[in-house]
Amino acid sequence: MTARVQSVLNEVKFIVGYKTYINLIRPFLTHQEIVATGMRQEIDRCREAIRLAAEGHKVAIVSSGDAGVYGMAGIIIECLEQEGLINLPLEIIPGVTAASASASMLGAPLMHDFAVISLSDLLTPWEVIEKRVRLAAEADFIFAIYNPKSNGRPQHIETVRKMVLDFRSPDTPVGLVREALRGEESSVQITTLEDFTNHPIDMLTTVIIGNSQTRIVGPYMVTPRGYKL
Amino acid sequence: MTARVQSVLNEVKFIVGYKTYINLIRPFLTHQEIVATGMRQEIDRCREAIRLAAEGHKVAIVSSGDAGVYGMAGIIIECLEQEGLINLPLEIIPGVTAASASASMLGAPLMHDFAVISLSDLLTPWEVIEKRVRLAAEADFIFAIYNPKSNGRPQHIETVRKMVLDFRSPDTPVGLVREALRGEESSVQITTLEDFTNHPIDMLTTVIIGNSQTRIVGPYMVTPRGYKL
Repeated sequence: MTARVQSVLNEVKFIVGYKTYINLIRPFLTHQEIVATGMRQEIDRCREAIRLAAEGHKVAIVSSGDAGVYGMAGIIIECLEQEGLINLPLEIIPGVTAASASASMLGAPLMHDFAVISLSDLLTPWEVIEKRVRLAAEADFIFAIYNPKSNGRPQHIETVRKMVLDFRSPDTPVGLVREALRGEESSVQITTLEDFTNHPIDMLTTVIIGNSQTRIVGPYMVTPRGYKL
Repeated sequence: MTARVQSVLNEVKFIVGYKTYINLIRPFLTHQEIVATGMRQEIDRCREAIRLAAEGHKVAIVSSGDAGVYGMAGIIIECLEQEGLINLPLEIIPGVTAASASASMLGAPLMHDFAVISLSDLLTPWEVIEKRVRLAAEADFIFAIYNPKSNGRPQHIETVRKMVLDFRSPDTPVGLVREALRGEESSVQITTLEDFTNHPIDMLTTVIIGNSQTRIVGPYMVTPRGYKL
């Protein structure tokens, strides 16, 4: 949590968010009124926050990681546009996105160019995702994969594994981080491109696939930046 | 700055870093001894920090944005390996990387898959960078470009512009953010793929190039996630 988030939480009257994320910040809350909603109710959340803000209240919408990366920042702007309120004062406060948080628990896998890809096909055709995976593999980008697996699409991550294997060695290091930087909830696994889908992966996991240069150094996964030591 | 950084700064005896980054945190320092070095002295910085840590001191190395993204996290691990000290206790604290910070000042351009690419060819052959740019353009990734320009290679960003134009409309929104979230030092410009290289761009600028869906909404640059409003 950044210092700016801490000060804004203290300033607002209402906090709107998905209940899981509200629970993560509950220890930091004092006087604020909480408007918690369930999963996949992103639009309702935005409309409620806008209604309260339009009445003159200070309102914070909570997102996990960085609200600007697959988070609530975009939909709140689109809702403001639709309601003719685009000039309502809005501050987007960036955070530590899952790619950064996960990388920090693995070592330093993101020292070189990387692609951030979500495997969720709820809002994106799978063909588009698959094309991106193939081209990113060919380009030797490190991968930071969000939403790698859910009950509705368990096979997508296996498809990704096979596509990347067309361009990279089976020994390529892969890091799996579940609930990055959430204390005792967190878990970390360093494995390989050959093997990683044999480990538990779910929607709370971030998958980091190394590029052709990534290697294991002691307990760490590192992609060298290229310095001559 | 995250809460974790604040508490670690208070715990350490020595702070090692590039002088520009040391200056950014100077207002938060009290008792710490500062070891500031110049640009391109990354290896010296790591060796000095490791020397102090091996003597039993608590030492922090400062990097800008997120130390895990093109930052100091990788080289410190490589130096530890070289010196046979890989088991020295090390904590990598993630931060808000320039892609996130810049996006927050532009609106919500990173709501969909994106590629993070550095145009610095000091440590990476230009051909590798160029290949990544071409494939990322074809894959319709949003671009977050770090180190877009320096005196030694002013033409690289123009080459990128032309390559992306092969796949995207000249009207594609492009955001230029200089010194993101550094108070009065910051500046923001929203422009187009056709025009953006006519604006000032330097090493402190992050360039965000939209994908085929990115659009301007009021004062914001937004890549829709795909929600039906």
